[in-house]
Amino acid sequence: MQALYIRDGNLRYLTDYPQPVRRAGQSLIHVIGAGVCSTDLEIVRGYAGFQGIPGHEFVGVVRSSDNQSLIGKRVVGGINLGCGVCEVCQGHGPEHCPKRTVLGIIDHDGAFADFLTLPDENLHLVPDDISDEAAIFTEPLAAALRISEQVSVKPSDRIAVVGPGKLGLLIGQVLSLGGGDVTMLGRRTESLRLPSDLGLTTGLVEDENDNTYDFVVEATGNEAGFAHSVRLLRPQGTLILKSTFAGLATVDLSELVVSEMTIIGSRCGPFEPALRLLSAGKVNVESMIEGRYSLSDGLRAFEHAAQPGVRKILINQ
Amino acid sequence: MQALYIRDGNLRYLTDYPQPVRRAGQSLIHVIGAGVCSTDLEIVRGYAGFQGIPGHEFVGVVRSSDNQSLIGKRVVGGINLGCGVCEVCQGHGPEHCPKRTVLGIIDHDGAFADFLTLPDENLHLVPDDISDEAAIFTEPLAAALRISEQVSVKPSDRIAVVGPGKLGLLIGQVLSLGGGDVTMLGRRTESLRLPSDLGLTTGLVEDENDNTYDFVVEATGNEAGFAHSVRLLRPQGTLILKSTFAGLATVDLSELVVSEMTIIGSRCGPFEPALRLLSAGKVNVESMIEGRYSLSDGLRAFEHAAQPGVRKILINQ
Repeated sequence: MQALYIRDGNLRYLTDYPQPVRRAGQSLIHVIGAGVCSTDLEIVRGYAGFQGIPGHEFVGVVRSSDNQSLIGKRVVGGINLGCGVCEVCQGHGPEHCPKRTVLGIIDHDGAFADFLTLPDENLHLVPDDISDEAAIFTEPLAAALRISEQVSVKPSDRIAVVGPGKLGLLIGQVLSLGGGDVTMLGRRTESLRLPSDLGLTTGLVEDENDNTYDFVVEATGNEAGFAHSVRLLRPQGTLILKSTFAGLATVDLSELVVSEMTIIGSRCGPFEPALRLLSAGKVNVESMIEGRYSLSDGLRAFEHAAQPGVRKILINQ
Repeated sequence: MQALYIRDGNLRYLTDYPQPVRRAGQSLIHVIGAGVCSTDLEIVRGYAGFQGIPGHEFVGVVRSSDNQSLIGKRVVGGINLGCGVCEVCQGHGPEHCPKRTVLGIIDHDGAFADFLTLPDENLHLVPDDISDEAAIFTEPLAAALRISEQVSVKPSDRIAVVGPGKLGLLIGQVLSLGGGDVTMLGRRTESLRLPSDLGLTTGLVEDENDNTYDFVVEATGNEAGFAHSVRLLRPQGTLILKSTFAGLATVDLSELVVSEMTIIGSRCGPFEPALRLLSAGKVNVESMIEGRYSLSDGLRAFEHAAQPGVRKILINQ
């Protein structure tokens, strides 16, 4: 089958990659389309040391499954595959299983290919009123919703999202659905046009005063974004970390102690609420699409996605 | 008056330092005794850029005050002096006032002197059943209690305190009062003797498995302690930061995101609960005292306190 394949930091387009074989309890899914996430770009730069097919934001059709009711259905899917038997899996699901694999990130081939496999229990049917392209946003939208599962953001809280990129725009939209005034902060005026068009308050991160916000979401994917986020947060405020990137950051831990900051790492979220919001048209995802490529043009898709300020690039069949 | 005075990283003993002048609403306090905290040692190394008299753990007697009922009374005192008029001071007290000064740490002379001044509202009367030396521990014990004000630690939680030093021992004792099994972790066997004598579970930090604890309190005062704490915490666990030290740490922020860790900075705590625990004899502080010096011998006291593994050094009048 066709696949984008990464090894030692080199991404290649292959036409003779073996089609994945589904195990019992898994479905074989024909990929309709997939989105390039910043994590995919970081994987090419060495994050997570992954070798295989990247891609974890997708929509597809089930071709083969032990569960007959799934066959032919349009699905999206949770990306974590747990061992299923450990205390973590039994108690909380696969997201934090120490032996987990992760679609397109850890030891499980991902969505930039003709086919992928996932456990049946990871799959969610896509309602007919969600387009293929919108459905691809289910996974990152779920990740944005994860924040509301972890902390209680009040409508009157002063909220900032640092980094008006792909994930930041979804987070900003989701948090503003709570009634709060969400400020999207970026480094360049151009990056603030789309968030402004989406009805969000915007600002240049450099212009913001220290200690301004009750909640800051760090969604830049770089170390400078973290430093800004810490600076903008009021004492005893909450900083949500959303970026995964290759590399280490230099942090003044004493500053965190003195200001009694709370920092919360936030990763994968709930798919059904994300599908409900997409179905209800409450989150605008179409405006975030900047390019569409075929799988055979996948290398160009990645090049485009890696350019500064570029938002969602889709790789469709 | 006598005072230990720090400027440009040099600590000196002076006999001709001017006695502080109390402002309206402040009391003049004759210091009976004061404890050397790790923060004091960090201040000598450049932390907080402080110039003046260090020392913020003390017990003293009020000599002069607008509040007649305080005069002659034995007191301990909260170390933060807020502006009193800003939103933070009005809403939450002086601890996070952006214009605050802090006894012996920021722009307000501290306790290693014959006299100090503090606002009357910072003072707490010391019950007669608490000895002078035990009363000196009120401030760090309050800081240990701060953790329980910020997070809910359940009796069945797996709890570790990394760093069995001065503050760590108070934290371990306080958290174990909740009924939980608290493990004190250190780098050297000798450092575990006292926590063991105090009835706490102990272990060598290097021997502990990854992802073991629900709660980890970082109380080492160094960067390596932070790395260990992150390693020992289970996914979605809570890490409490208690150390303030000069210098930056290198942090893998992506690791915090992937494991969905919560990190909470924790600083000053409530004095009245600390006094209640001291009065009831629920926390053993006497066993932590390793040396007593006079103010005129203050430089030797600091040298002693800076030796590895040394716990509380008191400087008494």
